[in-house]
Amino acid sequence: MPHLIVEYSANLAGYPEAEALAALNAAVCASPEVKDEADLKTRFVHTSAFEIGTAPANRAFVHAELRLLAGRTPQAKADLAERVAAVLRRLTPRPAGLMVQLSVDVVDMDRPSYVKERL
Amino acid sequence: MPHLIVEYSANLAGYPEAEALAALNAAVCASPEVKDEADLKTRFVHTSAFEIGTAPANRAFVHAELRLLAGRTPQAKADLAERVAAVLRRLTPRPAGLMVQLSVDVVDMDRPSYVKERL
Amino acid sequence: MPHLIVEYSANLAGYPEAEALAALNAAVCASPEVKDEADLKTRFVHTSAFEIGTAPANRAFVHAELRLLAGRTPQAKADLAERVAAVLRRLTPRPAGLMVQLSVDVVDMDRPSYVKERL
Repeated sequence: MPHLIVEYSANLAGYPEAEALAALNAAVCASPEVKDEADLKTRFVHTSAFEIGTAPANRAFVHAELRLLAGRTPQAKADLAERVAAVLRRLTPRPAGLMVQLSVDVVDMDRPSYVKERL
Repeated sequence: MPHLIVEYSANLAGYPEAEALAALNAAVCASPEVKDEADLKTRFVHTSAFEIGTAPANRAFVHAELRLLAGRTPQAKADLAERVAAVLRRLTPRPAGLMVQLSVDVVDMDRPSYVKERL
Repeated sequence: MPHLIVEYSANLAGYPEAEALAALNAAVCASPEVKDEADLKTRFVHTSAFEIGTAPANRAFVHAELRLLAGRTPQAKADLAERVAAVLRRLTPRPAGLMVQLSVDVVDMDRPSYVKERL
């Protein structure tokens, strides 16, 4: 069931999306929380324009949102977030002169109303 | 007030977006939970790259997120999710050799801080 | 820590994204809730197709989602939402004959599992 959505600012050109997708899925599916590897649906969504803060600084971000059915323990959620962070920490470009922020947001999805099926 | 955001993987080429938009809005606005049809704002957001799980399989997904002001009953939320699912089940392409996953996530929005107005 | 994601319908051509980014960040970072201006990561995400309601009317929308670590008071969240709304109210185009809806959704992020770091 997990959904993983990754965004990054456009000044991180050359982001290795394909490598990141494979590494993210390997890392998250290795968690005991993921019962079936086919459940993890990871994608990149592009942002069209961005601005970080108000100071005239060279800044970039990469952000991941991991959406899971509610009911995980806080420990399990923190472990999953760290699995995602570890991949992004390793693969995110760090152009000279750019301050890059990394963040991971774990979201509980409403279990009773969630629909999931294979067509 | 509802927001409905639909994503699908790029290997579902030819997705009938216009037909789906009309059918989704008809289905959701027919619910007694939607007081004013003009409140439902449905859109597609494109994903730039995706990967499902870790096995070398041909997989696709379509996913909808329905965001509603908090306070609906579990039954109302499940009914709304099923209205969305029924449309996507009917209209999502099923290319040969592709396993297609369908999911619908219903999200409560924070009522006290929500802003809504017509400009 | 805040993430601010703004979407608008494609019939609001000429949306002043750059001006809006600067004004949104100035408005939100002026809140006492934002300790470090560099924490606010604002971006636009484009929608590929949209439909509002079921009536054959000319409609548009602009929508913002502000994601904050959980723990703010209802008053603080409402104030932040209004800061965002005030900017969008001022800068959103209002083409003749188009009914434009504005909305702001404030979302609590799970604090214990949230990852945030500078690379």
